Amino acid sequence: MSSETNGKGASRRAFLKGAVAAGTAAAGATMARAAGEPDPLITEVQDWASGLGDGVDATPYGLPIRFEDDVVRRNVEWLTADTISSINFTPIHALDGTITPQGCAFERHHSGAIELKKEDYRLMINGLVDTPLIFTYADLERFPRENHVYFCECAANTGMEWAGAQLNGAQFTHGMIHNMEYSGVTLRTLLEEAGLTAAGDLSDKWVYVEGADASSNGRSIPMEKALDDVLVAFKANGEALRKEHGYPVRLVVPGWEGNMWVKWLRRIEVMDGPVESREETSKYTDTLEDGTSRKWTWVMDAKSVVTSPSPQSPITHGAGPLVITGLAWSGRGAITRVDVSTDGGMNWTQARLAKEGETKALSRFYLEIDWDGSEMFLQSRAHDETGYVQPTKTELREVRGLNSIYHNNCIQTWWVKANGEAENVEVS
Amino acid sequence: MSSETNGKGASRRAFLKGAVAAGTAAAGATMARAAGEPDPLITEVQDWASGLGDGVDATPYGLPIRFEDDVVRRNVEWLTADTISSINFTPIHALDGTITPQGCAFERHHSGAIELKKEDYRLMINGLVDTPLIFTYADLERFPRENHVYFCECAANTGMEWAGAQLNGAQFTHGMIHNMEYSGVTLRTLLEEAGLTAAGDLSDKWVYVEGADASSNGRSIPMEKALDDVLVAFKANGEALRKEHGYPVRLVVPGWEGNMWVKWLRRIEVMDGPVESREETSKYTDTLEDGTSRKWTWVMDAKSVVTSPSPQSPITHGAGPLVITGLAWSGRGAITRVDVSTDGGMNWTQARLAKEGETKALSRFYLEIDWDGSEMFLQSRAHDETGYVQPTKTELREVRGLNSIYHNNCIQTWWVKANGEAENVEVS
Repeated sequence: MSSETNGKGASRRAFLKGAVAAGTAAAGATMARAAGEPDPLITEVQDWASGLGDGVDATPYGLPIRFEDDVVRRNVEWLTADTISSINFTPIHALDGTITPQGCAFERHHSGAIELKKEDYRLMINGLVDTPLIFTYADLERFPRENHVYFCECAANTGMEWAGAQLNGAQFTHGMIHNMEYSGVTLRTLLEEAGLTAAGDLSDKWVYVEGADASSNGRSIPMEKALDDVLVAFKANGEALRKEHGYPVRLVVPGWEGNMWVKWLRRIEVMDGPVESREETSKYTDTLEDGTSRKWTWVMDAKSVVTSPSPQSPITHGAGPLVITGLAWSGRGAITRVDVSTDGGMNWTQARLAKEGETKALSRFYLEIDWDGSEMFLQSRAHDETGYVQPTKTELREVRGLNSIYHNNCIQTWWVKANGEAENVEVS
Repeated sequence: MSSETNGKGASRRAFLKGAVAAGTAAAGATMARAAGEPDPLITEVQDWASGLGDGVDATPYGLPIRFEDDVVRRNVEWLTADTISSINFTPIHALDGTITPQGCAFERHHSGAIELKKEDYRLMINGLVDTPLIFTYADLERFPRENHVYFCECAANTGMEWAGAQLNGAQFTHGMIHNMEYSGVTLRTLLEEAGLTAAGDLSDKWVYVEGADASSNGRSIPMEKALDDVLVAFKANGEALRKEHGYPVRLVVPGWEGNMWVKWLRRIEVMDGPVESREETSKYTDTLEDGTSRKWTWVMDAKSVVTSPSPQSPITHGAGPLVITGLAWSGRGAITRVDVSTDGGMNWTQARLAKEGETKALSRFYLEIDWDGSEMFLQSRAHDETGYVQPTKTELREVRGLNSIYHNNCIQTWWVKANGEAENVEVS
């Protein structure tokens, strides 16, 4: 076991050496104030506002306060040839909890974020169905709806790290992920509306889904998944999908790679086999050491990352109580446990999950330690309900080699120095 | 029982009379397109984008698409003398699911939304504690954190409806509510850090909490609640609190009236009795028929409202499948059941909860019906885990009279006309 405690036993008093202990003067100040006298502590406590603040007419729809201007999506210029087919990463290093606000949730487009009006929107279901149908947006709103919180992770998340520790920040190594509450209609409901009798035996059937953007981003999905938990969603975190997330309608394919979550959903065709489209042959496959490629690697395996401390979220205080926190998720179900190591994986301590893991949704973990002020090699390791344990980078490379881009779910290491700064490193 | 079915038995085919059944032509079109020929259905299906969309550099932090410009917080001009001490209502009629995005979550200030920097922020704990303390924001981040989704409802929500049906829209009658995932430190943790030995017997002790805005908005909270589930929160829905929600730190008092959720939290004083401040004497009390006022009515009782159809969300289609949806909540625990009536409360049908109720958080309910196209008097009725059932307005008036402003949790009625439009009405 690790030498650190789990925080419950740590004396939190220790860090108060650095904070202001108001002492008896404070009680005295309160009494003074109650008697109408000036408060001698007024310069040490939080000042009251010296005037009025903004009225409610200032913000029909609010944005973050200006002091949080650095908590935004960011792209990496050298990663893509242009910003039209590019990625904007979630600032996970600065977030807490599990819900990702739409405004800073990662976006990935192949031909830019397009603008579609609800009034102009049409969704076609065709192919091996009894009655090909075209739905308006208003039609979709007349079917029974479901609500679910799911993570969406790009298959390329952490993909730049196969060859080594390249990007210095959790936002860039692990920020192609978001987690929202979706409201929509199940794909099963719509397929059954069109009728699947004509399709015959469903066990070898597929649906091909495509978007209305210029890339179309077509993907093949086995019928078993299509009839399981896929949603045709029109709201995220309660409100309409944002333009960059596929307004007005996107597909939600729980636990599977983000590229299949087709945005600006245009057409669903029932077919007797997969299309083998660009997005599932030349891309989103995993090239192994021998040059062959694995395909249909849709599920995002269990993974986790410490979001703080991390390169963009250094420790800004000295030794003493420290909260280590991060995210864990699995495309195969719920997270059951997360371990944290401060010594590069030699010793592990079980972290605390903020709440019981939910299927295919982000879990937040915390580990409170009494930091001794020396350097750490911080890692986290996720376990999911299937018993799967997140592998080390070495273990992953042994199976997959170094030719892959996608599906890198290895354990991440942050070297946290004695001065609190952190760096992306590999440990052998 | 009501004459309507619960939707499961309703034939959804019916409404396709109004939609486009693409028929065999669609399958033909697909085959034609696959062969490289022009698609004869192209004007009926969703057009592909004719060009590229926005690059990822367009939106470091995104806002809703311009077509959703009407889904914003709104105030009611005649309700308050100015916008500094006023209310901006959540557009609940246009939302789905349960999470409220911060950007459109209702705001209520007594002296405007003030701007505080994290660096300048201080939180004082004083009074009957062993060691009065002053915390910086960075100090707060070093204590163990919790994550919880809770609703926050202003005690005055629905308050204009005591005398009759006044405001025409769920946003205005019930929109002083939001529901977010909070991350923060328990108040218990901070009180224990300061030490409660000096306070002696805690059963008759109180905490007085106040904000840094000019109103201070001070409120007294019994120690039992303070040590139960109250959070000192710094994140909502994953990101920093918005300015208008108390950045950088607010109190979260689960299930209790929103006025106690002190924003820009400045000071917490442990006392041997309540302060009887302005906000808990002349305001936020319930004046009864005989002129006496009930005080300490902190808990928000079980309540619900149909959000669609409703005056701002009329039915835009003819008879046939219709989704009725709304929100339910209880300050005493989880929602266990919601009933819906289409005939003003004579007959009730159990609605479907989107997921099992969570304590002191919004529940989303749905009832799918086969609407016959005639007028309805739509109502919803919440049940919570204590067995409490939401009362009618008549039942509430019998106990409380007509002098109250706060704590109106009566059943709401929408008169939905045959043309799909809806009005706020009372039924006797």
